Amino acid sequence: MKIAGIVRLEDVSRLCPLVSRGNDGLQGEVAETRPVQVGEVVFGGPRPVVIAGPCSVESHEQTLEVARAVKAAGADMLRGGAFKPRTSPHDFQGLGLAGLSILRDVSRQTGLPVVTEVMDARHIEDVAEHADMLQIGSRNMQNYTLLAEAGRSGKPVLLKRGMAASLCEWLGAAEYIAKEGNFNIVLCERGIKAFPAGEYSRYVLDLNVIPAVQEHTFLPIIVDPSHATGVSAMVEPASRAALEFGCHGLIIEVASDRPGAPKPMCDAAQAIGPATLARIVEFAAAHDATPLKAHAHAV
Amino acid sequence: MKIAGIVRLEDVSRLCPLVSRGNDGLQGEVAETRPVQVGEVVFGGPRPVVIAGPCSVESHEQTLEVARAVKAAGADMLRGGAFKPRTSPHDFQGLGLAGLSILRDVSRQTGLPVVTEVMDARHIEDVAEHADMLQIGSRNMQNYTLLAEAGRSGKPVLLKRGMAASLCEWLGAAEYIAKEGNFNIVLCERGIKAFPAGEYSRYVLDLNVIPAVQEHTFLPIIVDPSHATGVSAMVEPASRAALEFGCHGLIIEVASDRPGAPKPMCDAAQAIGPATLARIVEFAAAHDATPLKAHAHAV
Amino acid sequence: MKIAGIVRLEDVSRLCPLVSRGNDGLQGEVAETRPVQVGEVVFGGPRPVVIAGPCSVESHEQTLEVARAVKAAGADMLRGGAFKPRTSPHDFQGLGLAGLSILRDVSRQTGLPVVTEVMDARHIEDVAEHADMLQIGSRNMQNYTLLAEAGRSGKPVLLKRGMAASLCEWLGAAEYIAKEGNFNIVLCERGIKAFPAGEYSRYVLDLNVIPAVQEHTFLPIIVDPSHATGVSAMVEPASRAALEFGCHGLIIEVASDRPGAPKPMCDAAQAIGPATLARIVEFAAAHDATPLKAHAHAV
Amino acid sequence: MKIAGIVRLEDVSRLCPLVSRGNDGLQGEVAETRPVQVGEVVFGGPRPVVIAGPCSVESHEQTLEVARAVKAAGADMLRGGAFKPRTSPHDFQGLGLAGLSILRDVSRQTGLPVVTEVMDARHIEDVAEHADMLQIGSRNMQNYTLLAEAGRSGKPVLLKRGMAASLCEWLGAAEYIAKEGNFNIVLCERGIKAFPAGEYSRYVLDLNVIPAVQEHTFLPIIVDPSHATGVSAMVEPASRAALEFGCHGLIIEVASDRPGAPKPMCDAAQAIGPATLARIVEFAAAHDATPLKAHAHAV
Repeated sequence: MKIAGIVRLEDVSRLCPLVSRGNDGLQGEVAETRPVQVGEVVFGGPRPVVIAGPCSVESHEQTLEVARAVKAAGADMLRGGAFKPRTSPHDFQGLGLAGLSILRDVSRQTGLPVVTEVMDARHIEDVAEHADMLQIGSRNMQNYTLLAEAGRSGKPVLLKRGMAASLCEWLGAAEYIAKEGNFNIVLCERGIKAFPAGEYSRYVLDLNVIPAVQEHTFLPIIVDPSHATGVSAMVEPASRAALEFGCHGLIIEVASDRPGAPKPMCDAAQAIGPATLARIVEFAAAHDATPLKAHAHAV
Repeated sequence: MKIAGIVRLEDVSRLCPLVSRGNDGLQGEVAETRPVQVGEVVFGGPRPVVIAGPCSVESHEQTLEVARAVKAAGADMLRGGAFKPRTSPHDFQGLGLAGLSILRDVSRQTGLPVVTEVMDARHIEDVAEHADMLQIGSRNMQNYTLLAEAGRSGKPVLLKRGMAASLCEWLGAAEYIAKEGNFNIVLCERGIKAFPAGEYSRYVLDLNVIPAVQEHTFLPIIVDPSHATGVSAMVEPASRAALEFGCHGLIIEVASDRPGAPKPMCDAAQAIGPATLARIVEFAAAHDATPLKAHAHAV
Repeated sequence: MKIAGIVRLEDVSRLCPLVSRGNDGLQGEVAETRPVQVGEVVFGGPRPVVIAGPCSVESHEQTLEVARAVKAAGADMLRGGAFKPRTSPHDFQGLGLAGLSILRDVSRQTGLPVVTEVMDARHIEDVAEHADMLQIGSRNMQNYTLLAEAGRSGKPVLLKRGMAASLCEWLGAAEYIAKEGNFNIVLCERGIKAFPAGEYSRYVLDLNVIPAVQEHTFLPIIVDPSHATGVSAMVEPASRAALEFGCHGLIIEVASDRPGAPKPMCDAAQAIGPATLARIVEFAAAHDATPLKAHAHAV
Repeated sequence: MKIAGIVRLEDVSRLCPLVSRGNDGLQGEVAETRPVQVGEVVFGGPRPVVIAGPCSVESHEQTLEVARAVKAAGADMLRGGAFKPRTSPHDFQGLGLAGLSILRDVSRQTGLPVVTEVMDARHIEDVAEHADMLQIGSRNMQNYTLLAEAGRSGKPVLLKRGMAASLCEWLGAAEYIAKEGNFNIVLCERGIKAFPAGEYSRYVLDLNVIPAVQEHTFLPIIVDPSHATGVSAMVEPASRAALEFGCHGLIIEVASDRPGAPKPMCDAAQAIGPATLARIVEFAAAHDATPLKAHAHAV
């Protein structure tokens, strides 16, 4: 029987000609990644990038405190959600435009460029004005009108993988952005849905996709160990593992561990403290971003 | 270790108080479904509803031909895509507004109410003007701004399940629509991503979710056997199976089988012909929509 | 990159030449199934077969009571576990050889042929002496030495699908039995592991595999709605759905609903009572076993 | 609705009292692992263990050549299959007893202890005589009679995770071995079945399970990067990642890369050469086996 709608990796150069590397195989070394620049931060350059910050922007004070800790820990960029996709509409949805203002302000005070999620094409102008990089979240990976608008904005885009997206579908999503002339796209693996999700971790971290991404596209790829595990004690080993697997950076949720600091309003169980972040940054800084380069050969 | 972000069905009445049935168990019979009306068509009424039509609106002629065949086969409603979510931006994206006009026109000529997908909140007004029911596709099940706008439109909404959505996440999506005061929501199971997807069928049809939906919410649920299988020869048995499992209707892709008719531009391998549709309609018409009612009891 | 160890359905006629149908497609009708006979019961014949009985054999009294109810409900064969595969070694493991004697005795008293699971090649002789059909459970689907011994026994074999088995791997398991000259193999779909498993049902019932099995092999296929759902209220609709999808029979767990009857020692939540079984048998008896035959065609 | 047969991690101390760590949480540090000794090799000791060798034993010459290369690369133990579980019975099934003799002989010549798979309880005596450690493969993870016999043999056991096994089911399998008084059990993660399996890698490598194992049991855990990826170029990054995630060792498939050396008869695409293995061993040797120890704390 013939099956409708099946896309295969073999067809990626036809489906996604713009972002496809277009070669036939690994050929003894990882072909070059095209760096993406956000301010002075370079994804896919000689050193892995570390983005860190609170899950959501809850107040100016909280955001500034975490951003300063993130800066002190040596991270390169700030993250923080102003628009939050929540399973229930009755849960905290983020501060919205007010959150964007806080992010911009805190970014200026700390000198850290900022990435934040945009969930609605009508907010792109606002987000693009306040942030240095737009994040398309997992739930919107195939929100094609949002992808196209993000492409047209000209801003660098962090494109998270959908929870059930094949590599082919993910690159197809990137192609929607690239088709608008915007190649400043950074991919982000953040865990997939599979049978163990929820038993001992939030999602299943799929690191095998990193070398596959590097074979099929020139776009840089980073990893979100916070969502992929959902468990704060797993974030550090997951970060190190992702770097060893050759990713170009990390995006991590951090909370203040100052006594008396309020508990984060969402996903507290996956937030790490500044000291853990500092160790991750140190590990990343000492790390050759292309461990596969010299070594990729086999029998 | 604590895991962040895990939602469990036990919490559904707290997360989704508006659409949750709010009782504790099946208690000897399936509690009542609240019917949703679209024109004279009733979802969750005494008889299953059959929606059918082309995958995409390709021309007035093609749409009218298929709609007449669908009408002749006895189906209740017309489907057809004017905006098509495609893996690659280089594939046919639908006729857009022109497609909406065709749908409205064909709907008037045949007397069939029409449902069509909306992928962009900025199109909702246009789609609501031309269609009788808005479809939120799988890829947008957690596009929360689209859900809220669909809620505010006041139009009946067909909410497809995301390919990796738990029941809890699906009901959370419905809650976003209901929160805007719109309870005219029909759920649609359309296959999930799991390891066999792509080996012999497009997705894995998950019929177990039907009685679970009926236990946890009063919203009607229909099934899309076309996408769930991706194989035309499986559409009829899948339709019959879904009806036996107690669903309130079906949405099916149909193509003309007239010699010389052009092959559909997308998903041709899952389209059935009018004669097969007629048999499905006949089966549905003879079918008690609530087979569980009298029987739901166990040891 | 090349991937090791991937088996594809395209290769099934090479990997499994004995059980493969060996044709290229559905070709307008489902090719013929080769019936498998167990006593006077025929799998793949004109009428679906219903196997029913307790999860496990707990006593002579309990087994006889359920078997008589099963017989009265019109089922064709008796099931019951003497050797029980349990997640924990501290849970009830079945009565073993004593259970086999009970089954044989009850089978004689009721005239129902009996199928029971064998988990150890060293028990095959004993099981083959007491039972009319050997069951290979999901957990042992790729226990190749057990498969070969079951083949050599000459007894009919009920081969359950592994929880993560592709169709190709499942047919490969059947090929191990067939290679020993034993073609009396009946396949059994019993639910797969995927992300929703455990949220609202025990496994995900994968009915799409039925027509795929019928395309690729001549072996009959039945369905186990008890394990696939794990919920007694879902067993009846799942049974009807599986029959509509063209399966050749069902295997169902039944418990006594007599007031005062002891609760089953395992999987009580999925057992149905005799009255529900009787309705399923009636549905099966009225059912054309090959609903696809006349209809399998498409655009 | 109640669901039958669901096991949850919360119940692990009741289901698996023997292998369960029995505490309630991570409590600021990873509790201690109980080392398992095989000859002079210590799993769960201060240094990660590297097991390496051919996929299958094909001849004395080939096995000796690979074993010498493995020894020269600094690995601790030899692996090699004498009994091979293959999807099709028509594919090479291993040399059987002759393969065991080769393994024992090569083990003596190189001084490397050897682990090999046992698939049949009737072979345990033979395997135990020729090998230093018994491997239970993924396909047999719930072959409970084999587990019990392996327990009774008194030999150390390498217990691979089933492709669809939850952590709870995996620990349940270990409990079957422990119940026979044998606590010399080493767990091995080797990739799970999920939707991406087969697109760009063979299975999905699930590293999140490592800290979860370390929280719930005192048994050591190693990783098989060869099967988990199925791609030779991914084996080195997967090995480094697994070590960063805190595993106690690796088991890796190696083939000769000498010009003229015959291609392995199975899984050639996942075999690495001796030089790659040497780099992995060097990485492992420099590696603190308990990176989480000092750091496991969070907000």
